[in-house]
Amino acid sequence: MRRNIKLTLEYDGTAYHGWQSQDNAVTVQSTVTAAVCRLTGENCSITGSSRTDAGVHALGFVCNFFTESNIPADKFSYALNTLLPDDIVVIRSEEVPADFHSRYSARAKKYCYLIYNSVFPSAILRHRAYHVYYKLDVGAMNEAAAFFKGTHDFAAFCASEASVKTTVRTIMAADVRRLPHDDRLIELSVTGDGFLYNMVRIIAGTLVEVGFGKLSPQDIPDIINSLDRRRAGRTAPAHGLYLAEVFY
Amino acid sequence: MRRNIKLTLEYDGTAYHGWQSQDNAVTVQSTVTAAVCRLTGENCSITGSSRTDAGVHALGFVCNFFTESNIPADKFSYALNTLLPDDIVVIRSEEVPADFHSRYSARAKKYCYLIYNSVFPSAILRHRAYHVYYKLDVGAMNEAAAFFKGTHDFAAFCASEASVKTTVRTIMAADVRRLPHDDRLIELSVTGDGFLYNMVRIIAGTLVEVGFGKLSPQDIPDIINSLDRRRAGRTAPAHGLYLAEVFY
Repeated sequence: MRRNIKLTLEYDGTAYHGWQSQDNAVTVQSTVTAAVCRLTGENCSITGSSRTDAGVHALGFVCNFFTESNIPADKFSYALNTLLPDDIVVIRSEEVPADFHSRYSARAKKYCYLIYNSVFPSAILRHRAYHVYYKLDVGAMNEAAAFFKGTHDFAAFCASEASVKTTVRTIMAADVRRLPHDDRLIELSVTGDGFLYNMVRIIAGTLVEVGFGKLSPQDIPDIINSLDRRRAGRTAPAHGLYLAEVFY
Repeated sequence: MRRNIKLTLEYDGTAYHGWQSQDNAVTVQSTVTAAVCRLTGENCSITGSSRTDAGVHALGFVCNFFTESNIPADKFSYALNTLLPDDIVVIRSEEVPADFHSRYSARAKKYCYLIYNSVFPSAILRHRAYHVYYKLDVGAMNEAAAFFKGTHDFAAFCASEASVKTTVRTIMAADVRRLPHDDRLIELSVTGDGFLYNMVRIIAGTLVEVGFGKLSPQDIPDIINSLDRRRAGRTAPAHGLYLAEVFY
């Protein structure tokens, strides 16, 4: 019987050229596909919820595949973890209806962006957070983040090489805070119905400019309305970004 | 003028065979020594506060060296960070009196041991925390930890290959808690005037056995009093251990 299996993955993106399979590059998709094919003995193809970039991490990436295998759905996680390298972990496996599609069925996604705000970089977090040595004003960043909420044309926050039908997206939540256990860590969380290419990283880079006073929170609506990528801040580096959760 | 320079280091121990220089192995000491010698043009030798094992991390390791160089003391950090690999960061540099010795002047040290307590391992934290998949009783572990406080002969918590004059040490603080931002993370913190070889890792391994009910908190005094290494738990793996702070 052909079943649709949904996997939830945590991964450290440092060693991968992003999610999507490419020629001549190791990707998360190609690595997971190889493990699933080996386990099932089938030629499975894996559909992912998003195309994370090289170096981007995931706490709850979702993918799915169809199989004739009779392995119980919740056992895929254990079996695949024995075949996967230890920087990719299946944290949940379950059977879903045949019409479930990791990407098209997603209602919303939550991303986190981690900034390490200290004079010196962190050895421990060097692949986990973006190091910013200027002291950042987190209150101003959080005030600025609120302006992203709602339905807007985010053309100014989309990498110029992207070609999409529409650049309109809805952001349900956006906030910035220092983490209570370590005040050098600043976390941006953004939940939206979809994200343009590099959108969270451009939002993060723009909020950093608010954080050190180059922009004020009140500049954000103007930047959004300009639809001009050059008005927004720089694209913050990939290694601070985490796909945290996909909602269905 | 010959000055004594104290460095405080953060490092990711994953790629190193511990602190201490060895033939045919890359260590933190040999890496820092190479950077200091290159910067000063002198043949400096570096004294460390402790001999961390392979895979052990540091948030505040201390070392010192003597130099004739006239680089301002607080600039060593910036200059050395340009010469060091990014898994070793000098987070502070300062001039100290000539009689300051990283090891002999230390009054106390604080270690943290991080446990990732979840059914599946963590890809992100795989080199940062010890994965324990049994659900641990943190209340019992914290109760057990309290029995380590005070002055005791810790022979039962010392790797058998160690040869030391005395196995008596004083523990000032020992507690175990789930971290508020992520309840899968359990942190053991121990502060003492000195630690025997593998002592924190054996304490951590013993507390894990309390956490899953193999030992009860009330067993700890008996194990300490036995002076018998075989009565304590297993040595927990190096990659969960952090030298957090050295007090002078």
